[in-house]
Amino acid sequence: MTDALQPLRDRMREHMDLYHAASVLIWDQRTYMPEAGTEARSQQLALLSRLAHERLTSDEMGEAIEAAREAVAGMDPDSDEARLVRLAARRYEKLRRVPAEYVQERMRLSTLGNQAWEQARAKSDFGHFAPYLKQIVDLVREYPGFFEPADHPYDRLIEDYDPGMTTAQVRQVFDPLRQEQVALVRRIAEAGPVDDSFLKQHYDPDRQLALTVEALKAIGYDFRRGRQDLSAHPFTISFGLNDVRITTRVLPERFGSALFSTLHEAGHAFYNLGLDPSMEHTLLEKELSMTIHESQSRLWENLVGRSLAFWRFFYPRVQQAFPGQLGEVDLETFHRAINKVEPSLIRVQADEATYNLHIMLRFELEVALLEGNLEVSDLPEAWNEKMEKYLGVRPQNDAQGVLQDVHWSESLMGYFPTYALGNLAAAQLWETITADIPNLEDQIAAGRFVDLHAWLRETVHRHGAKFDAPELLERVTGRPLTAEPYLRYLKTKFGALYGLD
Amino acid sequence: MTDALQPLRDRMREHMDLYHAASVLIWDQRTYMPEAGTEARSQQLALLSRLAHERLTSDEMGEAIEAAREAVAGMDPDSDEARLVRLAARRYEKLRRVPAEYVQERMRLSTLGNQAWEQARAKSDFGHFAPYLKQIVDLVREYPGFFEPADHPYDRLIEDYDPGMTTAQVRQVFDPLRQEQVALVRRIAEAGPVDDSFLKQHYDPDRQLALTVEALKAIGYDFRRGRQDLSAHPFTISFGLNDVRITTRVLPERFGSALFSTLHEAGHAFYNLGLDPSMEHTLLEKELSMTIHESQSRLWENLVGRSLAFWRFFYPRVQQAFPGQLGEVDLETFHRAINKVEPSLIRVQADEATYNLHIMLRFELEVALLEGNLEVSDLPEAWNEKMEKYLGVRPQNDAQGVLQDVHWSESLMGYFPTYALGNLAAAQLWETITADIPNLEDQIAAGRFVDLHAWLRETVHRHGAKFDAPELLERVTGRPLTAEPYLRYLKTKFGALYGLD
Repeated sequence: MTDALQPLRDRMREHMDLYHAASVLIWDQRTYMPEAGTEARSQQLALLSRLAHERLTSDEMGEAIEAAREAVAGMDPDSDEARLVRLAARRYEKLRRVPAEYVQERMRLSTLGNQAWEQARAKSDFGHFAPYLKQIVDLVREYPGFFEPADHPYDRLIEDYDPGMTTAQVRQVFDPLRQEQVALVRRIAEAGPVDDSFLKQHYDPDRQLALTVEALKAIGYDFRRGRQDLSAHPFTISFGLNDVRITTRVLPERFGSALFSTLHEAGHAFYNLGLDPSMEHTLLEKELSMTIHESQSRLWENLVGRSLAFWRFFYPRVQQAFPGQLGEVDLETFHRAINKVEPSLIRVQADEATYNLHIMLRFELEVALLEGNLEVSDLPEAWNEKMEKYLGVRPQNDAQGVLQDVHWSESLMGYFPTYALGNLAAAQLWETITADIPNLEDQIAAGRFVDLHAWLRETVHRHGAKFDAPELLERVTGRPLTAEPYLRYLKTKFGALYGLD
Repeated sequence: MTDALQPLRDRMREHMDLYHAASVLIWDQRTYMPEAGTEARSQQLALLSRLAHERLTSDEMGEAIEAAREAVAGMDPDSDEARLVRLAARRYEKLRRVPAEYVQERMRLSTLGNQAWEQARAKSDFGHFAPYLKQIVDLVREYPGFFEPADHPYDRLIEDYDPGMTTAQVRQVFDPLRQEQVALVRRIAEAGPVDDSFLKQHYDPDRQLALTVEALKAIGYDFRRGRQDLSAHPFTISFGLNDVRITTRVLPERFGSALFSTLHEAGHAFYNLGLDPSMEHTLLEKELSMTIHESQSRLWENLVGRSLAFWRFFYPRVQQAFPGQLGEVDLETFHRAINKVEPSLIRVQADEATYNLHIMLRFELEVALLEGNLEVSDLPEAWNEKMEKYLGVRPQNDAQGVLQDVHWSESLMGYFPTYALGNLAAAQLWETITADIPNLEDQIAAGRFVDLHAWLRETVHRHGAKFDAPELLERVTGRPLTAEPYLRYLKTKFGALYGLD
């Protein structure tokens, strides 16, 4: 039985080895590569990507999938093997339908678009980027046409990052959430400002970095199977089951940015590191739901990392590292400051309570662009209006508004929703976790994370990409993805912090 | 004309991109990779090596070479294009003659042999390694049989690292050198000991490392096109013309080791960085003579780096960094100490005057093994006898003797001579350089290296692998490789330092 899967496994193995090799090159490019190395590196990466792509889309892969399909036909459809074949077939069929010329043109436009976007953002001039974005949007509009019609063409975009998730589902979750979240943010704003000025002073970068390492060790990140380096934009990257690395970034005039970034990336890394070893070197290792991935990073960054319990454990260490800045600041004051809610213009700096509103705005604009209900030229105004409506702030220029994110310049559309869905999924998982581990809060306050790790590994991590996000959440939490746990979490937490009724 | 070379260039380009990608993985493995990453990394590297090898040895490559050969038939045989085709054809033909099973068996034995060697060295027990080495030697003996008979079978080993160099040539150079070098070392020993105790005390590792960076900047290593990191064994590695990196190692209780290692690797890096850009992404970038490579590293480490002129320039900076250790040590005393000659057991710790004797010993043993005039079981005794004869010291155990080098355990034979030949070539080049740049010593004493760089780039570096070592040396210095300049250099330098007549 298993032998019939061997040709499929061999091809996936080569794909994964090439993919991981490319990942090493990307990691190096973003951490240590000298500036003159860029051009050759791009060529090396293009070759590795092409070879990796060929391994997944060749006729031989098609034959290997066919043979494997027959072999698993009589097996439990929920077995790892049956799921692996299903996953490979789905990816194969989707990739084979997209013409090579289309892929090339999209890569070409992404490179040009990205350059134009960088220039446009520097000048805060959307007009400079608009012609490129128009071409990108036109090209993205063609994409759903390569496949069987879906309920909504945007479904074909989402499923590249989150198979099984649809536009209708996202709307169903976002629509009630938007109203409630807007209302909550308003009430918080009315409750008056929180003082976080003590976080905004000089914090020695080396000591900040050392604290992130201390935090990583404390929460159980295994440095024998990974490492942390510095990069301009923090990221997590896997070179295989036993080498999953993260990066962070330190702001010398701001405490928290580095530490929460580290916790966020560690959450991503735990997901990769927790895979069942039998799934190594297969697509089950790689084709992970971005919603689940983001739920893991948010869980460690926010549900754990911004909780009072965590800081009962970790705050003494931070005070010891920065006695001048924090020696006189008590735990509750510190905890309130790191949870300060403040509607702002920039997504990546947004707090827990406002973040999703930034995402909903982008989701709505993307869908409207794809449907043809919004023209690229009208984008800045549409952006600014929604900002005012959802967050009560209005960008003074394009750089602070529609030009702030890199995604569209690289023709990345359909990805944004996973950020917000990840927040919701994290809260939904958390309700189940805390039901299963009733004294989890005490454990965290005591710096004990083994039960939490065991739970996450057993229910989420070890499965890799075996289950799509909706199916996994249903299996683990007993219900489909919904915004309710997330709203309960927000209301409880910020209700207490801001003394709302 | 040039278009007929395009298929060849395309295949070489893919080979080079894969080779450089593999190099990034190797660099990471030796610098930053967490320990658990080893197994997956080996698989990734094996795949990239196989794909790179396929690009050079496929039937399509054969056809591309044929087409290119016809195209360059009427051209100047010394043109870059004609030489490129010659180089590709030579490599292709050599690689095609070696059966894949042989290559695999040699890789397998190298892995096993390396493990056994590590264990044997730890226990200082040659008997544990001997059965593996016997198999390796048997396999290496088969290798010359794949090709047309050469004057000596060992020629086929040398030419893998130094095409155009033969066993007879190496002997012709080594034989007179050995006598004279043994005699010189004796006379130095009789002249009495030099005090270098002040080099053997604690030198802060961070400050040592900072000094190596200062030295790199001072001698013109371009950090936009490379970088320096730490590794257990220093090395130079290229990811392309504009990203050539080095590593170093710092010994906290010894000044000089890190700095000279850095200068050595910088010399290697300059060679790679000095290639004519038109040769980028071809075999002219990669198939460099190891003798010339080693001449460049030795030139910067010794001819420049251990000269009095260099330290006139750089010693004040070292004194400033280590006032407690060196503040009272004058320049001449320091210079004598870093040039101390002392026969010792370990090759990699040998000084300039004794180093070649370690190499000659290995060369003679390798040739005898290949000829069948020496059995593996007799190797330790043969080693110890030669050590006593050439250096006047005798290893007390195998770890200090025959087990000290990694090379044989990985079936690397024919490589050792390039280390000594590099020393000779460096001295021979230096005589021409100093004739062409009469005030070079003053320039170096003033920290000025641009003329030296320009000379090396113009006469050596830019040609890449266009000329084999013997041809290049003849072109540049007007005569074949000979030991005379090297002996003159040794006698002049150490004659003065040790007050020999």
